[in-house]
Amino acid sequence: MENTNKAIVLISGGLDSATTLAIAKHLGFNCHGLSFDYKQRNISELVAAKNIAVSLGTTEHKIIKIDLAQIGGSALTDEKIDVPDYPTDGIPITYVPARNTLFLSYALAWAEVLDVYDIFIGVNSVDYSGYPDCRSEYIQAYEKLAVLATKAGAQGKKFNIHTPLIKLDKGEIIKKGISLGVDFSLTVSCYQADDNGQACGICDSCRFRKDGFKKINVADPTIYKNN
Amino acid sequence: MENTNKAIVLISGGLDSATTLAIAKHLGFNCHGLSFDYKQRNISELVAAKNIAVSLGTTEHKIIKIDLAQIGGSALTDEKIDVPDYPTDGIPITYVPARNTLFLSYALAWAEVLDVYDIFIGVNSVDYSGYPDCRSEYIQAYEKLAVLATKAGAQGKKFNIHTPLIKLDKGEIIKKGISLGVDFSLTVSCYQADDNGQACGICDSCRFRKDGFKKINVADPTIYKNN
Repeated sequence: MENTNKAIVLISGGLDSATTLAIAKHLGFNCHGLSFDYKQRNISELVAAKNIAVSLGTTEHKIIKIDLAQIGGSALTDEKIDVPDYPTDGIPITYVPARNTLFLSYALAWAEVLDVYDIFIGVNSVDYSGYPDCRSEYIQAYEKLAVLATKAGAQGKKFNIHTPLIKLDKGEIIKKGISLGVDFSLTVSCYQADDNGQACGICDSCRFRKDGFKKINVADPTIYKNN
Repeated sequence: MENTNKAIVLISGGLDSATTLAIAKHLGFNCHGLSFDYKQRNISELVAAKNIAVSLGTTEHKIIKIDLAQIGGSALTDEKIDVPDYPTDGIPITYVPARNTLFLSYALAWAEVLDVYDIFIGVNSVDYSGYPDCRSEYIQAYEKLAVLATKAGAQGKKFNIHTPLIKLDKGEIIKKGISLGVDFSLTVSCYQADDNGQACGICDSCRFRKDGFKKINVADPTIYKNN
C-alpha cells in the first residue's frame, strides 16, 4: 500500500541530504523540500539543492532566505573567518551557531501549516565534524520541544524527526544513495566550493566525502582542486 | 556589586517585552535587544520596538528580517486571513506557527556568538491567547534543547531563558513596568495597528491591554479606534 503521507525534507545540496531525500521518497512520502539561502560562502550548494530536488522529485521545493551573516561566528557565515584546510581538535570553526535548530524551527513552522508530522534531516554522527546539533540526543530533545511548541502538539499530535543516516558511515551513506538512484555528481559537499561547484579537496567536508567514496571503492564524481 | 553580565532581550514592541527589558536592565544586565521584521501586518510594532530600545537603553539593538509570509498559516503573517474582532475558542488564528521557537533559535545563535547565557523573553501565560509557546513547560524544554544544540552547551555551559512575566496578570505587568519607568505610550499591542500605531481596540491583544490598565485603575495612553 502506498504511503500517501507528506514529509518535509531538509535539502542542503550535499550528499547526505540527497540520500535522505531518496530514502524519504523510497518510503513513499510526498516530499516537500526545504532549503536555506543563508548567505553561505558556498552558494553552489543552493544550485545543487535545486538540482537534487528536481532529479529525485519533490512536490514543491521552498528556499527560505535567512540572514546568518548578521549573527556571524562561523567560517561558513563570516567572510572574515577562513575555512581551515586541516583537521582541528574539538568542534571546528565551521560550526554555525544553532544552525540545525534554526533549520528545524522553520521546518516545524511549515510542517504545522502543511499539517505534516514527518520531517527528514540528513544529520550524521559517525563521519562528521562533531557538531552538537547532529546527535541523537539533540534530535530527541527537539521532538519533545516540537510537541510543546505548537498548536498541533497541544492538540495531541507528535512530530517525527527522521534521521535515517545518523548511524551510518560515509561509505554506507554513499552505497545507500547509489542503491536508490542518487546522482552524486549533482551534490556539493565542499565548504568553499567555487560558483561552478568545484571543490577545494582539503576542508573537513571534502575529506569525509573523498574517504567515503574511497572506502567503498566507488569513483567520486567530484572535481577537486587539490587531491 | 554591579552585575556586568550581558543578556539578550527579545523586544516585540508590546508592553510585555518593554517591561521585560526594564526588568533585565534593573537586574543590571547589559542588554542586547533583538527584534524581528517578519513582514507582520503590524509594522508599527517595529517602530515601537526601536523606540523602546532607545528609551530604556540597550547596548545594541539588532533587527533580523525573517520571511514568515513564505510559511503563512496565521492571521498575523498571511494577508488573506483576517484578525478576528471577537474572542474565539481554543488557540486563535493569530497563533503564528513555531514563532517563539524561531525567535529563541535566533537568540540562541546570537547568544553563542556573544558568549551570553541569559536570554529574556516576555511570555505570559495568564492574560494571553493560549499560545502553546508561552508556557513554562515549553520554555524549560527549550533550555534543555539549547544545551544539546550548541558548542557552548557541549562545553558545559547552560542557557537561562528568563520569563519574568510568565505568572503575572496584565495589570501586574503594567504596575511593574510603571515602577521601572516604562513609557507605555511607546508600546503597541494591537495585532492590526495602523502605521501610526493607532490600535483597533477589538482584537484579543487590545482587549487584554485595555483590561489590564482598567484593572489597576491607570489611564491607558493608547488611542483606540473602537472603545
